[in-house]
Amino acid sequence: MSLPRKADAELLGIRFDEGAGRGSFALRAGLLRHDGALYGGTAIAASVVAMEAATDREAQWVTTQFVATAQEGETIDLRTEVLASGRRTAQVRVTGTVQDRVVFAALGSTGVRKPDGLSGQFERMPEVTGPEDAGEVWPGPRLPHMSHDGTFRRAVEHRPARLPEGPGPVLMWSRFIDGRTMTPAGLAFVADMVPLAIARGAGKIGAGTSLDNSMRFGEVPEMEWVLLELRGNLAAGGYGHGLVLVWSQEGQLLAVGSQTASMSFIFGDEPSP
Amino acid sequence: MSLPRKADAELLGIRFDEGAGRGSFALRAGLLRHDGALYGGTAIAASVVAMEAATDREAQWVTTQFVATAQEGETIDLRTEVLASGRRTAQVRVTGTVQDRVVFAALGSTGVRKPDGLSGQFERMPEVTGPEDAGEVWPGPRLPHMSHDGTFRRAVEHRPARLPEGPGPVLMWSRFIDGRTMTPAGLAFVADMVPLAIARGAGKIGAGTSLDNSMRFGEVPEMEWVLLELRGNLAAGGYGHGLVLVWSQEGQLLAVGSQTASMSFIFGDEPSP
Repeated sequence: MSLPRKADAELLGIRFDEGAGRGSFALRAGLLRHDGALYGGTAIAASVVAMEAATDREAQWVTTQFVATAQEGETIDLRTEVLASGRRTAQVRVTGTVQDRVVFAALGSTGVRKPDGLSGQFERMPEVTGPEDAGEVWPGPRLPHMSHDGTFRRAVEHRPARLPEGPGPVLMWSRFIDGRTMTPAGLAFVADMVPLAIARGAGKIGAGTSLDNSMRFGEVPEMEWVLLELRGNLAAGGYGHGLVLVWSQEGQLLAVGSQTASMSFIFGDEPSP
Repeated sequence: MSLPRKADAELLGIRFDEGAGRGSFALRAGLLRHDGALYGGTAIAASVVAMEAATDREAQWVTTQFVATAQEGETIDLRTEVLASGRRTAQVRVTGTVQDRVVFAALGSTGVRKPDGLSGQFERMPEVTGPEDAGEVWPGPRLPHMSHDGTFRRAVEHRPARLPEGPGPVLMWSRFIDGRTMTPAGLAFVADMVPLAIARGAGKIGAGTSLDNSMRFGEVPEMEWVLLELRGNLAAGGYGHGLVLVWSQEGQLLAVGSQTASMSFIFGDEPSP
């Protein structure tokens, strides 16, 4: 495997200097939130790619903290510090800045998987219909400011695998619209959806502002569709926590993630305007 | 509430300079791993306390990455950067060093909970016997190097709430032996146990070296015992991921955490020597 992966470098338009401790990418259409600012999935995907590039090892887990917004057209500079590098595992820290203003900060480990190392999965895939039989309805809220047409939804398709009926997990199939294969960074990009499920856990429709996104990776074979199993865990005083399990169509558990969000946009059970 | 909390400052023996952006504590008995080095629960608890002290707001989530070991008697210096501070939420980064050597790095958010903000819990507590009826058997492996008597087990008691029978979650009651009350930092200290459950998920007895510890907090009322519900999610090539739900005796979900570990110590189903 050659790191960074070509599919990831193309998705983000990311370039690294020699030595790979520094890189940059421009915030362009397809990498934005509904309000036109940096999408959280873009920030965690860039963190994964930067860690893999700097260490030439695969990401095992990454937590990205969202510090400030950045706007379309701005260039995000990435500085990657390898805090420790052992025989198998490297501990890495990434800081994303726009003109010396910190936009996101990340921590994570990259490492070399051993063929005889402990392997297995200990969770069960939910029973759902396949992506071909799923509707094309966006299961989240539609807010008035969701009008920017350069959002991540230009790059990613989400289809509800089971329509949410009251509280419970949100299940969605997701793929890149251009048929691009999944990678760890790609999974992190499409899975930045936990706040939806926190609102749904409470029986509400709504969303929030993610404070961070954390993903832990298993093996990610080449594939198009992944199932996102999104679960709200709890909310307290407007801060909500939840997790996501990412499955292949064949039932392989590819990654497990978690997020905390400030749950600012909450509606009742009726569809939002 | 006055931050940092007295119970936390005492647990770690932590002191902050004026302005609270810098602090330090000495690695003493009760804060160590079984091999006499820095215990991961100590590092995440110190990260929580440092973030709360620097912002005078409660921790909402914290991820601490374990970079290098430190030994009994060494002093750990904490440097806390408030990367952003809004009306409710602050984004914070902590670096723990011993003589300019990075020992751990952390990211997290502190914030002010709103009385009318989204609140609730969306998970169900497992059915278990109470802590009084649980045995006092340590459910983890007993390794030859686990002989240091200054470990965290001098400060914390763990009792299996349901004896593990093959794969499945590990359930343990936990409290501070001196009767100290629980706090978010205290929860993080006692819950650094996920690698046990990753081995157990695979039907093995074993443990691993944690690469990080991430905790997301709800409300934590004053209490003595908490139930740790530890679940392995998956392992790939020797890296394992899992999570922990922390419950009160009354069934309140207090926190949700996750960890990745290098699963180096794995045995079969028979008890280890």
